[in-house]
Amino acid sequence: MFTSPDLPAVTVLGLGPMGRELAGAFLGSGLRTTVWNRTPGKGRELAERGATVAGTPEQAVAAGELIVVCVVDYDASDAILRRDEVSRALKGRTVVNLTADTPGRARDTADWAATHGIDYLDGAIMTPAPSIGTPEAVFLHSGPRDLFERHRSVLEVLGGTHTHLGEDTGRAATFDIALLDLFWTAMAGYAHAVAIARAEGVTAGELAPFAQGIGAILPPLFEQFAQDADSGTYSGEINPVTSAASTMAHVVEVSESHGIDAGVMRAVEGMARRVIGLGHGADGFIRVAEVLGRH
Amino acid sequence: MFTSPDLPAVTVLGLGPMGRELAGAFLGSGLRTTVWNRTPGKGRELAERGATVAGTPEQAVAAGELIVVCVVDYDASDAILRRDEVSRALKGRTVVNLTADTPGRARDTADWAATHGIDYLDGAIMTPAPSIGTPEAVFLHSGPRDLFERHRSVLEVLGGTHTHLGEDTGRAATFDIALLDLFWTAMAGYAHAVAIARAEGVTAGELAPFAQGIGAILPPLFEQFAQDADSGTYSGEINPVTSAASTMAHVVEVSESHGIDAGVMRAVEGMARRVIGLGHGADGFIRVAEVLGRH
Ligand SMILES: NC(=O)c1ccc[n+]([C@@H]2O[C@H](COP(=O)([O-])OP(=O)(O)OC[C@H]3O[C@@H](n4cnc5c(N)ncnc54)[C@H](OP(=O)(O)O)[C@@H]3O)[C@@H](O)[C@H]2O)c1
Ligand SMILES: NC(=O)c1ccc[n+]([C@@H]2O[C@H](COP(=O)([O-])OP(=O)(O)OC[C@H]3O[C@@H](n4cnc5c(N)ncnc54)[C@H](OP(=O)(O)O)[C@@H]3O)[C@@H](O)[C@H]2O)c1
Repeated sequence: MFTSPDLPAVTVLGLGPMGRELAGAFLGSGLRTTVWNRTPGKGRELAERGATVAGTPEQAVAAGELIVVCVVDYDASDAILRRDEVSRALKGRTVVNLTADTPGRARDTADWAATHGIDYLDGAIMTPAPSIGTPEAVFLHSGPRDLFERHRSVLEVLGGTHTHLGEDTGRAATFDIALLDLFWTAMAGYAHAVAIARAEGVTAGELAPFAQGIGAILPPLFEQFAQDADSGTYSGEINPVTSAASTMAHVVEVSESHGIDAGVMRAVEGMARRVIGLGHGADGFIRVAEVLGRH
Repeated sequence: MFTSPDLPAVTVLGLGPMGRELAGAFLGSGLRTTVWNRTPGKGRELAERGATVAGTPEQAVAAGELIVVCVVDYDASDAILRRDEVSRALKGRTVVNLTADTPGRARDTADWAATHGIDYLDGAIMTPAPSIGTPEAVFLHSGPRDLFERHRSVLEVLGGTHTHLGEDTGRAATFDIALLDLFWTAMAGYAHAVAIARAEGVTAGELAPFAQGIGAILPPLFEQFAQDADSGTYSGEINPVTSAASTMAHVVEVSESHGIDAGVMRAVEGMARRVIGLGHGADGFIRVAEVLGRH
């Protein structure tokens, strides 16, 4: 098998849908790639493509210079990394942890790594597994900038864009959490919209083109609302939060008239009502961001 | 003033931000335009551009062949239309009600119109007021198709796309409610994401480009999830709802660790947990749409 002489040997710990894509992209670029997964068997296809399947995480670590971790969360990551055999094997190596979890867990792991002589970068992947190796992939990284720069070329083998967000190890997870908050809330809105449409005799397929239209108007509004939020202006000239709240009440009413739980929209409306109750009814809805953070 | 000989005289009832844009677009196309608003003074600028400002809704109705209504909701619309003087003036004319409310209210108003010899179309505007007169505007209509076709050319003066969704008068409102559900839920997700980011020292402006990236991946997912929902397949191969639920729990944890209310995400996670509890943990999140509609 052709292996790249310029790039380091890599190890991937965790072979879920994402870990498999990452290992596959490394292999596809000719990197010497070792993989390990708690439950055996997930590396079979990668082995056929030239990966070494290690029997233990410490063996996998010993075979690589750069160790990429991608498991369900930091409980899983800790269960793998924070054992003596593995910590010892990691000493002097670099870990890039692409597992999603909270900023606090990422910072805690950076501290642990520092006390064990392990170089540590935290990262987050913002796009679905099939995006890996394509220009669509979006990776966020945080931790020591020089460490990121040193490993940038091998990380770029994974495709897409790689952004270093800062030295604070928790930054990638912060962006990740905020963006997943947006993503899953929006998805919940879509699933709920489909449920309402169906109850009124409209199929998801009929609704979809218009839902895509809504999707298309969101990005410019995100930009505009960000400016409002950072400048503290919150203009409601085009759409005051009072008007939004009345719309939300309609959604709740139609939903519940069909026996469809409206808990999400009730909570959204509650946020809008709180803004109005605090005397900001003429402001735009994004004022919610400020009120949420007020204690 | 130049007035169009081919197009009918129009009346706009309601001069909020949207009503003013509608009247402005009619005027801009040279249509004889009469306006009325409950609170006087809102038509001043339109009058300078050639609109006739009527003193009562019945006078406004008498001056137009096509009557466009655009007020806050159907309580307001009823308060204007369902008075004897106005009903009498409307007889033989066409009302296009672009006020947002529930499908039930739209159907009820169609029934009322039929008993008063009034031709009635219901509509919804899916884009913000500044979109009126531009190609970005999106109008949905429902009610008698021949009536829609008869007035199509004058409606198209408002710009954008005009889609007739069906003869059931409630259909435009159904799409409207479902799409507003999606829109406001997504906006709430964004506002909440901004609140979390700020609590972790990230500004809305720093988050915005990545939020726009999330916005960009939504439309194709809406299409794919619609196919899943309509075919009942709900594949969770790329992202099972169990994995989504664990992500949601992280968002709740980070949010609450900063004292930021996580009511919306708690409700979203509740939907995911319900799907898992019903034995569909390996399915994709869109299975939520089916479970929500189950009684
Ligand atoms: N899939 C995507 O499209 C996507 C997109 C963006 C980000 N991500 C993130 O990428 C990470 C991995 O996601 P994924 O989709 O590949 O799979 P996943 O379902 O989130 O995680 C599965 C992986 O975690 C391992 N694991 C779980 N508990 C473990 C434990 N206690 N000890 C050791 N290993 C454990 C599993 O091993 P077993 O096989 O032994 O159970 C498997 O390798 C997650 O943080 C996810 O949020 C995924
Ligand atoms: N603005 C947008 O970007 C946008 C986008 C899409 C759809 N829409 C929809 O368009 C409709 C109008 O929206 P808008 O933004 O123009 O303004 P709005 O704030 O939703 O409604 C204001 C209008 O309603 C009138 N009104 C309220 N209660 C009334 C009553 N009891 N009797 C008579 N009139 C009453 C107001 O008259 P007064 O001046 O006397 O209070 C004013 O003309 C709404 O259904 C909205 O959801 C708006």
